[in-house]
Amino acid sequence: MTEKKKTTIVLFSGDYDKAMAAYIIANGAAAYDHEVVIFHTFWGLNALRKDEHLHVKKGLLEKLLGWMMPKGADKMGLSKMNYLGMGPHMIKHVMKKHNALPVHELVDMAQAQGVKLIACTMTMDLLGLQKEELLEDIEYAGVAAYIGGSEDGNITLFI
Amino acid sequence: MTEKKKTTIVLFSGDYDKAMAAYIIANGAAAYDHEVVIFHTFWGLNALRKDEHLHVKKGLLEKLLGWMMPKGADKMGLSKMNYLGMGPHMIKHVMKKHNALPVHELVDMAQAQGVKLIACTMTMDLLGLQKEELLEDIEYAGVAAYIGGSEDGNITLFI
Amino acid sequence: MTEKKKTTIVLFSGDYDKAMAAYIIANGAAAYDHEVVIFHTFWGLNALRKDEHLHVKKGLLEKLLGWMMPKGADKMGLSKMNYLGMGPHMIKHVMKKHNALPVHELVDMAQAQGVKLIACTMTMDLLGLQKEELLEDIEYAGVAAYIGGSEDGNITLFI
Repeated sequence: MTEKKKTTIVLFSGDYDKAMAAYIIANGAAAYDHEVVIFHTFWGLNALRKDEHLHVKKGLLEKLLGWMMPKGADKMGLSKMNYLGMGPHMIKHVMKKHNALPVHELVDMAQAQGVKLIACTMTMDLLGLQKEELLEDIEYAGVAAYIGGSEDGNITLFI
Repeated sequence: MTEKKKTTIVLFSGDYDKAMAAYIIANGAAAYDHEVVIFHTFWGLNALRKDEHLHVKKGLLEKLLGWMMPKGADKMGLSKMNYLGMGPHMIKHVMKKHNALPVHELVDMAQAQGVKLIACTMTMDLLGLQKEELLEDIEYAGVAAYIGGSEDGNITLFI
Repeated sequence: MTEKKKTTIVLFSGDYDKAMAAYIIANGAAAYDHEVVIFHTFWGLNALRKDEHLHVKKGLLEKLLGWMMPKGADKMGLSKMNYLGMGPHMIKHVMKKHNALPVHELVDMAQAQGVKLIACTMTMDLLGLQKEELLEDIEYAGVAAYIGGSEDGNITLFI
């Protein structure tokens, strides 16, 4: 029995285009029969947020942070040519025209393909994000789990 | 016969300084006798654009995108201290003073050393870039080629 | 005797949050008994700057660059939600509240754990940074050392 190849991605960025790149690589690797993990930390956690208003108990600062950060990948801005929010509309327009999947569908596809989505508990704590605010069927872990899961990886990326 | 070591870089960024870092690492790895691949996707494709005005048939949105994006690495901005375009001039000035190669020469050197330059066809399509607009002697491929080429890599970076 | 696993990080970014992520991963990998190297290049060099005013002989442009760049990690801005410098204060506030270590302490911890901190000599030269301006007990090297040290790495990241 040969071992599966492995791709692990740290998704740090909260940019729509970078989340898109991360999930396209993840889905590609999964299609190639890799074991794939995306470890979401800092702004990358926003890709896992539910697109709805939730009443969770938080401090004022955490409420403020939660209010300022995008609720889910499709609310994110672009890393380049954002133009006060016009850029994402333009990109989503060309994506639709070219039948490219929006990020929330890439996330669904990743889950369906068995890509392991992990939320970094330390940065959830820092940014005041709670489990109720994130998607179902994801895992929660810290940096130790990332190291343990990546040290025998074939492709290791930080996005 | 021992196999060659391998370095693969996803160049996602359209920043001059990041493209410079990518090409310095690529040239360094090639000098160390690595097999080296740079997979250009999203804004990183602009590093491969020809520095000339070309008449290619495009839709309006694609024309607009093509007009807004830099034509070649030497037209790119900086990831930090760009100062409305003054930063790149300053950096290029110090680069000249210290005999550092500008990015378009690092690209030439990479090609001369046999670094494989790949343009991501999916994002070319999204950004409306056509083969005529990109440098000669590059390859065209999708995410599957990236995964296949990187899963036995020694150094895998996303820049 | 089994060989140690190895994690190598290129720290290119001069953002506080990215430097924090780099040092958390580095410290985590060191705790997992990895050999760990952080290769600081471009704006990432600022994480190694001393937090004091030093009189070193420099050209005008190099003085200007030195004056514009942050002196040490704790003077850096955020990659997201920087809000003209308010963001870092907010993040440092929540970090304190949650007992997260500020980056300069993560750097100390990394040095105590034997993480090898390397400053890229080529970009020090470009940005006009001199050894006197950087922390003690770090090493100085170029891209060849990075390639040589990373080609047998388990986790290779560009941050």
